[in-house]
Amino acid sequence: MNDDRLKRGIARLEQMKNHNRIGSKLEEISPALNRMRQAFAFGDVHAREGLSARDHELVIIAGLCALGYAPVELKSHIHMGLNAGITQGEVLEVFIQLAVYAGFPAAINATFIAGEVFAERDAAKE
Amino acid sequence: MNDDRLKRGIARLEQMKNHNRIGSKLEEISPALNRMRQAFAFGDVHAREGLSARDHELVIIAGLCALGYAPVELKSHIHMGLNAGITQGEVLEVFIQLAVYAGFPAAINATFIAGEVFAERDAAKE
Amino acid sequence: MNDDRLKRGIARLEQMKNHNRIGSKLEEISPALNRMRQAFAFGDVHAREGLSARDHELVIIAGLCALGYAPVELKSHIHMGLNAGITQGEVLEVFIQLAVYAGFPAAINATFIAGEVFAERDAAKE
Amino acid sequence: MNDDRLKRGIARLEQMKNHNRIGSKLEEISPALNRMRQAFAFGDVHAREGLSARDHELVIIAGLCALGYAPVELKSHIHMGLNAGITQGEVLEVFIQLAVYAGFPAAINATFIAGEVFAERDAAKE
Amino acid sequence: MNDDRLKRGIARLEQMKNHNRIGSKLEEISPALNRMRQAFAFGDVHAREGLSARDHELVIIAGLCALGYAPVELKSHIHMGLNAGITQGEVLEVFIQLAVYAGFPAAINATFIAGEVFAERDAAKE
Amino acid sequence: MNDDRLKRGIARLEQMKNHNRIGSKLEEISPALNRMRQAFAFGDVHAREGLSARDHELVIIAGLCALGYAPVELKSHIHMGLNAGITQGEVLEVFIQLAVYAGFPAAINATFIAGEVFAERDAAKE
Repeated sequence: MNDDRLKRGIARLEQMKNHNRIGSKLEEISPALNRMRQAFAFGDVHAREGLSARDHELVIIAGLCALGYAPVELKSHIHMGLNAGITQGEVLEVFIQLAVYAGFPAAINATFIAGEVFAERDAAKE
Repeated sequence: MNDDRLKRGIARLEQMKNHNRIGSKLEEISPALNRMRQAFAFGDVHAREGLSARDHELVIIAGLCALGYAPVELKSHIHMGLNAGITQGEVLEVFIQLAVYAGFPAAINATFIAGEVFAERDAAKE
Repeated sequence: MNDDRLKRGIARLEQMKNHNRIGSKLEEISPALNRMRQAFAFGDVHAREGLSARDHELVIIAGLCALGYAPVELKSHIHMGLNAGITQGEVLEVFIQLAVYAGFPAAINATFIAGEVFAERDAAKE
Repeated sequence: MNDDRLKRGIARLEQMKNHNRIGSKLEEISPALNRMRQAFAFGDVHAREGLSARDHELVIIAGLCALGYAPVELKSHIHMGLNAGITQGEVLEVFIQLAVYAGFPAAINATFIAGEVFAERDAAKE
Repeated sequence: MNDDRLKRGIARLEQMKNHNRIGSKLEEISPALNRMRQAFAFGDVHAREGLSARDHELVIIAGLCALGYAPVELKSHIHMGLNAGITQGEVLEVFIQLAVYAGFPAAINATFIAGEVFAERDAAKE
Repeated sequence: MNDDRLKRGIARLEQMKNHNRIGSKLEEISPALNRMRQAFAFGDVHAREGLSARDHELVIIAGLCALGYAPVELKSHIHMGLNAGITQGEVLEVFIQLAVYAGFPAAINATFIAGEVFAERDAAKE
């Protein structure tokens, strides 16, 4: 494992203020897959500068909504997207737009997850 | 059918310089579905101002890449995305990012479609 | 938003005796998406007369089973399908038929959801 | 292989006037899978009497539209559905309804395939 | 229903030491679908000798990971795969490999389910 | 880009006797994605020794069959799987097994692609 990639990935995860527990839970079961998540998914890919951090998250949130079966990852990335400057209103617009392409159930499920994220962040503020 | 929605959708399709033949082909077979594409998909949804035209296309391109089975619509929206200010490099970055979430085959297929779009636009310039 | 479409959609939802909470929950988080669900999904599409209400539901139940990731919507539409005249036995036959095309996991998951719906209706009768 | 199931499946395929070449092509490559298609998919499942032949096809057409990646099977089943009494207009209504649940690309792709089927049948009449 | 197929399927399920409750739950709601699961899925297909029992499970586990929406079946088949000689380490390698083709969310979700299975088996040993 | 990973990936692709044109076509359009395919997909993941080369391919072929929308990658991996010791009969068994989990259309489409691969290899021998 190349150290620079891993460091860059961990730094990127911190920069995105990713606070959910996917990483720690994955580390316990499959450290090799978690290392790839850090070094490849965040170090090689998410840290690329050809898209802004905000656009990386916009694209990921849209892709996860379309996949339909990834609520845990979607929740994590709605948090990261909001941390990267996407507004709550824009998150909802993404799912309205995807109702057309991926169907209403995918869009509505994603909207319900967004509602949970918004509530968590409101609770954290108080 | 409400005329304003339809007019707004047709105007939006023109604004995006959508020049592929999905609409005309659909009109021949299922005018009712084409009317919904114009009035709902473009008039109600794509014309919403909560996201920029560029972000609408970024989100659609990402969603279509993740679905995996929509090459004709993806081709059309890569054209519209480029017309809305996404660069060719950014289109490729979207698919690099989605290789992580939707897998390499979805990303590679989408990249090949982008290659066709780029070639068509180069040919049109000459 | 065109009032006639919205009224027709709300009337259609009432006619189908849709009693689950997707609409009220969605209204709280994304009123714009809920308005599209009412005006477009039910007012424009579900209320179309080219298919009977029973056939609309047969088609939706089949589509949701094949998608695999929409248990909440599927539960809602099994209720609406039964309200529209599909029998409990026919619902199970739909999923038996789809085991062939979408695979046994999609069919078994849908059957388990049907079991929950049947139990809810039995409980409501008592 | 139980002979009755196989006979019933082959009879069902003939009854549906299935004239596409999936069976003959599959027989050359994987006779075992073709035998299961005949005995299980058509003999055990499609021939069940809990749904009418028309409803079997309505459900299959809807499921294949939602899957998105099965144009060859969808074409075959649109033919069989029309042979079983579904009208051309109803086929188009199925895809209009599924635009809501599976998204417009799935619905539009299926509509284009329906257009090919309708043209083939018009050509055959002449 | 042909008795030999059913007997062979039930024997195969016992041989795989399938101890989850999919079968008993399904029997209550849709005995016809459960009979097909026993006679077709296990009697006709899983019992085929062209692949080893281990390879049948390797293939099923990979397919279920890629589908993304079948956690209950995946859990059942990770148990059966371990019973058929796949090691815990190999299960994790399957999901690492599929991160490339089906994406990280599908792989991570499957890995979390594997973690639950490993914990259940550790608890059962104690 | 770490040179060792890239070298290991290119060596792995050569070892698998991958002779299709995905790599060269991708290199022209998106060299960065091709580099990740080589260094990550083949150098980091496919070259892992926790599964045999044959099992890597068995798992990939199964996953691609289940995804349904990746014929080009599936063709490439059926070739690689045969090069790694999977027999033609076993390839067909994989798709028979997946008919149960991913449905007959996914299995039949994959079988047709296998037929093309078998024919190409027969033609190459002559």
